[in-house]
Amino acid sequence: MTEIAGRMRAMARQAKSAATVLRALESGTKNAVLRELAALLREKQAQIQQENALDLEAGARKGLSQAMLARLELSDRVMAEMVQGLHEVADMADPLGEIGDMQRRPSGILVGRMRVPLGVILMIYESRPNVTIDSAALCLKSGNAVILRGGSEALRSNLALAAVSHEALSRHQLDPDLVQVVPTTERSAIDALLEQEDCIDLVIPRGGEGLLRAVTAKSRIPVLKHYRGVCHAFVDESADIDAALRVVVSAKVQRPSACNALEGLLVHRNIAQEFLPGAAEALHREQVRLLGCERSQTLSPHIEAAAETDWGREFLDLAMTVRVVQDMDEALAWIERYGSRHTESILTGSYANARRFLREVDASAVMVNASTRFNDGGQFGLGLEIGISTSKLHAYGPMGLNELTTRKFVVLGNGEIRA
Amino acid sequence: MTEIAGRMRAMARQAKSAATVLRALESGTKNAVLRELAALLREKQAQIQQENALDLEAGARKGLSQAMLARLELSDRVMAEMVQGLHEVADMADPLGEIGDMQRRPSGILVGRMRVPLGVILMIYESRPNVTIDSAALCLKSGNAVILRGGSEALRSNLALAAVSHEALSRHQLDPDLVQVVPTTERSAIDALLEQEDCIDLVIPRGGEGLLRAVTAKSRIPVLKHYRGVCHAFVDESADIDAALRVVVSAKVQRPSACNALEGLLVHRNIAQEFLPGAAEALHREQVRLLGCERSQTLSPHIEAAAETDWGREFLDLAMTVRVVQDMDEALAWIERYGSRHTESILTGSYANARRFLREVDASAVMVNASTRFNDGGQFGLGLEIGISTSKLHAYGPMGLNELTTRKFVVLGNGEIRA
Repeated sequence: MTEIAGRMRAMARQAKSAATVLRALESGTKNAVLRELAALLREKQAQIQQENALDLEAGARKGLSQAMLARLELSDRVMAEMVQGLHEVADMADPLGEIGDMQRRPSGILVGRMRVPLGVILMIYESRPNVTIDSAALCLKSGNAVILRGGSEALRSNLALAAVSHEALSRHQLDPDLVQVVPTTERSAIDALLEQEDCIDLVIPRGGEGLLRAVTAKSRIPVLKHYRGVCHAFVDESADIDAALRVVVSAKVQRPSACNALEGLLVHRNIAQEFLPGAAEALHREQVRLLGCERSQTLSPHIEAAAETDWGREFLDLAMTVRVVQDMDEALAWIERYGSRHTESILTGSYANARRFLREVDASAVMVNASTRFNDGGQFGLGLEIGISTSKLHAYGPMGLNELTTRKFVVLGNGEIRA
Repeated sequence: MTEIAGRMRAMARQAKSAATVLRALESGTKNAVLRELAALLREKQAQIQQENALDLEAGARKGLSQAMLARLELSDRVMAEMVQGLHEVADMADPLGEIGDMQRRPSGILVGRMRVPLGVILMIYESRPNVTIDSAALCLKSGNAVILRGGSEALRSNLALAAVSHEALSRHQLDPDLVQVVPTTERSAIDALLEQEDCIDLVIPRGGEGLLRAVTAKSRIPVLKHYRGVCHAFVDESADIDAALRVVVSAKVQRPSACNALEGLLVHRNIAQEFLPGAAEALHREQVRLLGCERSQTLSPHIEAAAETDWGREFLDLAMTVRVVQDMDEALAWIERYGSRHTESILTGSYANARRFLREVDASAVMVNASTRFNDGGQFGLGLEIGISTSKLHAYGPMGLNELTTRKFVVLGNGEIRA
């Protein structure tokens, strides 16, 4: 075993050992730690921002883009958001201990399912150091220890945030190993951690598709992630033209870099002539580049020819594809082929088509007459989210506190044995 | 790509394509197929048993043990059980389409979660060809296509069962590719299938620990499994002696080869003198070999010294470990160290200790005053089970129909956009 592998093994074991105490920790203590951490972040804001400034300087020297540097920055606004997030998590109900589905069986035993923590969670992410605090808060509240591996460009910031977390934990006599930041930028550290399946229960990677594929290929631990968000809106022939226009434009331009932003527009041929010229005009006014099929190009001068590789592309920018389809069947087949199981929306006035779309489209969120941008933990009422899963297993869609837990069976007997 | 890899890729694609139709298939059609299959199994029983006889002959020539040959045999009784299982699955409620947790959000949208199939499931198992039919039935009912890779010694039997399944599907105009048996015994076929993460959604391996570890290490697809069942009973100082004796003996001897059979007995020191001599005597009468700590050996002549490697061992036979512990803390620490997260039971009269055990023990089933043998889909009211998971993610414990599904978010809007 290399030295790095040995250190990662030790971290994983420490996390596992620290986690056992969380199973039975009172909600009050967890919430007190979260509020303590919020207070400490305010108190030590200048110190943390100093470390962050060193990361920013080094990043600028390395030639990071303006967008990346912006994501890396712990501005006053980002610091305030972290503090607010901590209070929000503290205010949320504790998911642990809830027992559901209790039933008496013919044998006489009572069987139910109790919500319990997963154990140890490994977060792998890029840039944004605020993910460090958000993730630590959600993991602690849901009873899990967490190992955090942020981007190498954010290491000083993340270590500063970890130090503050340790202080908050220690002040309440809790093991600082409940929140650990990987203290090295070595890539082999990730590989070593992904082999600790006896200590780590879940890996959540967030970042580019390359990172996600590498983590999935190497991990022996279950991984929850979404590769891409290629979201479509299908404007059905019975759609309300004004509502469809409003939803399509907003879903595209309101925050184009988000994974739930619209990347593809499908229009029923019977409404194309009425809907598409105005929609293209409106999108063009918002500086959206439109890449369309031949039929769509005949309906608006703002639509250019799409290349074959544009279909199913995740633009994350002011660009999208446009396609006129024959009918609902073609729309469904198109989404099946080019969608990414993230978010799909139909704009329709037809009850039957709405029902069919909801049932048959395979995506983490399927919508009728609503913007794809609603696929978000906060919007769905889960509170702060730790990521979005398109993996189907365990969690499909935004992941909040409950998705960081599992349910074990509990049996209350009276001396029963199997017949 | 090798020729085998190409064929496996094609199987995975066919399964994925076949699966789309299942999302919207009526329950009535699925149940009709299951009953048709039951009727066909009766009708073609002689034919199937002929193929099975060829497997048995080849197995005997290869020197398979009597136990393995017994598991391989499709006797009249096993055939009847498969038929009955099919009717049971047909009688169960269809899990798909159920919408829960519907709420109106401040934005105006209605959000809920709809139960949907996973898609394509890969089963990898050894011996018992009846798993082929049980798994096909559960996957079909839960809306999933399935790829079945049984043991090489059962290939002819499995192909015969697949042929009957295809006939049942075809009679109802359904794609035979919904149930596929891997038609080769090449080991590389498994490796190739485990890479088809874009087509296969879940892998369920059942068999020895070697097989399970190999599958977990290689798979890019989520895997649900349990490595071992090392189940303990802790006889607390306040236990009812008679009930504890009955539960312990039954949990050990009722079916020692089962993964939920007892492998370790922990006894509180304050009850050891009263409980252990009688318990050891009773277990000895049932021919159970007892391997114990020093203290336990002083209490019964039937207890031999345990080797260090016996603690945490999965005997699957008439043998078990015995240990006297200081208190509840030691029992909990012991289970944490040597248990396998499968099933753990406390025998106690103390409300506080029962509550603490339920909360703090990390296992797929945690019991009070009941036999560990109850950890079973049928006993827990899930119906026929497709396996037991100690993986925590997605399913923790026996897996029935619901565990072969996931929940997607559905949004009913009225033209809402993000503010």
